[in-house]
Amino acid sequence: MNDNARGPGEPAMKAAATAWFEELRDRICAAFEVLEDELAGAFKDRPAGRFSRQTWRRDGGGGGTMAVMKGRVFEKVGVNVSEVWGVFDETFRAEIPGAAGDGRFWASGISLVAHMRSPLVPAVHMNTRHIATGDKAWFGGGADLNPPYPDESDTTDFHAAFKAACDAHACADYDRFKAWADDYFFIKHRGMARGVGGIFYDFVAAGDDAFSFTRDVGETFVKVYPDLVRRHMDEPWDEDQRAHQLAYRGRYAEFNLVYDRGTRFGLMTGGNPEAVLMSLPPVATWP
Amino acid sequence: MNDNARGPGEPAMKAAATAWFEELRDRICAAFEVLEDELAGAFKDRPAGRFSRQTWRRDGGGGGTMAVMKGRVFEKVGVNVSEVWGVFDETFRAEIPGAAGDGRFWASGISLVAHMRSPLVPAVHMNTRHIATGDKAWFGGGADLNPPYPDESDTTDFHAAFKAACDAHACADYDRFKAWADDYFFIKHRGMARGVGGIFYDFVAAGDDAFSFTRDVGETFVKVYPDLVRRHMDEPWDEDQRAHQLAYRGRYAEFNLVYDRGTRFGLMTGGNPEAVLMSLPPVATWP
Repeated sequence: MNDNARGPGEPAMKAAATAWFEELRDRICAAFEVLEDELAGAFKDRPAGRFSRQTWRRDGGGGGTMAVMKGRVFEKVGVNVSEVWGVFDETFRAEIPGAAGDGRFWASGISLVAHMRSPLVPAVHMNTRHIATGDKAWFGGGADLNPPYPDESDTTDFHAAFKAACDAHACADYDRFKAWADDYFFIKHRGMARGVGGIFYDFVAAGDDAFSFTRDVGETFVKVYPDLVRRHMDEPWDEDQRAHQLAYRGRYAEFNLVYDRGTRFGLMTGGNPEAVLMSLPPVATWP
Repeated sequence: MNDNARGPGEPAMKAAATAWFEELRDRICAAFEVLEDELAGAFKDRPAGRFSRQTWRRDGGGGGTMAVMKGRVFEKVGVNVSEVWGVFDETFRAEIPGAAGDGRFWASGISLVAHMRSPLVPAVHMNTRHIATGDKAWFGGGADLNPPYPDESDTTDFHAAFKAACDAHACADYDRFKAWADDYFFIKHRGMARGVGGIFYDFVAAGDDAFSFTRDVGETFVKVYPDLVRRHMDEPWDEDQRAHQLAYRGRYAEFNLVYDRGTRFGLMTGGNPEAVLMSLPPVATWP
């Protein structure tokens, strides 16, 4: 890999990936604000939410921007973009391909988690990233749907959309990436899936197809998820359903704090904890 | 160490330790139910809480009893006693003294976390345990106070009580155990303490003094903590203070899921997840 002031990796691809993650963030924020405007169900008398942004710098190299909205459809949604570089902690190196040598890394990505007011609207996670170490560079990411009350056609449509994205790229194997999500988004200590799955991929060697596939994952997300929100956001719900949603969120928090690779990456590389933990639910219960 | 059907360790001490953990549990439950009866502040019109118990068996050896109370002073308090034995998972062995060889272990302990309704009453954690592996046996434990609003005399009295317990035993070094608590009960990714500390000890070689000290830690807890609850439980509080308490609990949940040794031990040895995660707050926020 080439080297430059911002750590290892190929500069043109790094710049293009970072620019894409920022563009995708802008498009997602705009699409979500439209949903806030469209609400006709519970909470419609509250003002429509709007994203606010906050930038942060990382000691040791880089930083990012947190975009957060606390709205009437989206109880709490965070969309983080960050570009960071530096040297991995000694103990963390062993976990990362190509980092055993000099430990230098560069990483850029977008990470999104949405927790919804209505228990009938699925929560969602989407993340894509480009990472380079001393002798490897790759793309990774994924998206998974987390409905407190799974809806069969939502699940079908979500999976079909990501299948289409995978099928268009030689570097992507839908069956493998879907199985990887089922395996990854699993709360081992409870022996249960965190949601209804999606796709997960990592260590896809950097190159034009890997980047193009990563862009398609983002495009797919911004197309399919708002439709699922629209299907359910005006449906009435009751306090029992809300209580179920809050306990479901407790298990989501368990997953993120115990197992999530991105959370662990962020906490172990000195990321901004507010940004890293933006994924945690606004309210959760362990009743 | 001797060996028997229940795994490594010295049978008489193991039996005595387990009997003590159960006796301590009974005394704590009784003392906490008295507090439920005494309440004269907010929620006094609700019925006084009572513990209910549930036993569980562990695949691979042993089991435990969860005692849980959801009351009007104690929003959620869990007191678990368990005695488990088996063989450590290959990947977990390296973390445990004396387990690198055959990986067999036996462990018995009491573990308590109390989350209080009033934001002015400190939450608390107390845990003591006796563990034996193929060639080592030891006692460990600790207690720490977690007040959303720290009160100087509460903190002073809590620390003084555990200092007295340590000072009475040759195996216990208060300064070291207090510093260990400050180091252990620290939320690294946030760079902040989880509470106001207490004591933490581990790997204190099994023997009469180590067991006697461990009993004193329990005796100290059951003497000092109810007094702190009594000081504050009838004081009025408002919604802003409650909101602060719920966010404080969010950080407590982060600590337990990311760093807590007992939680990790439980999840990695196939403990009952409901018992292991009993420490999580009934409601927490990440606002």
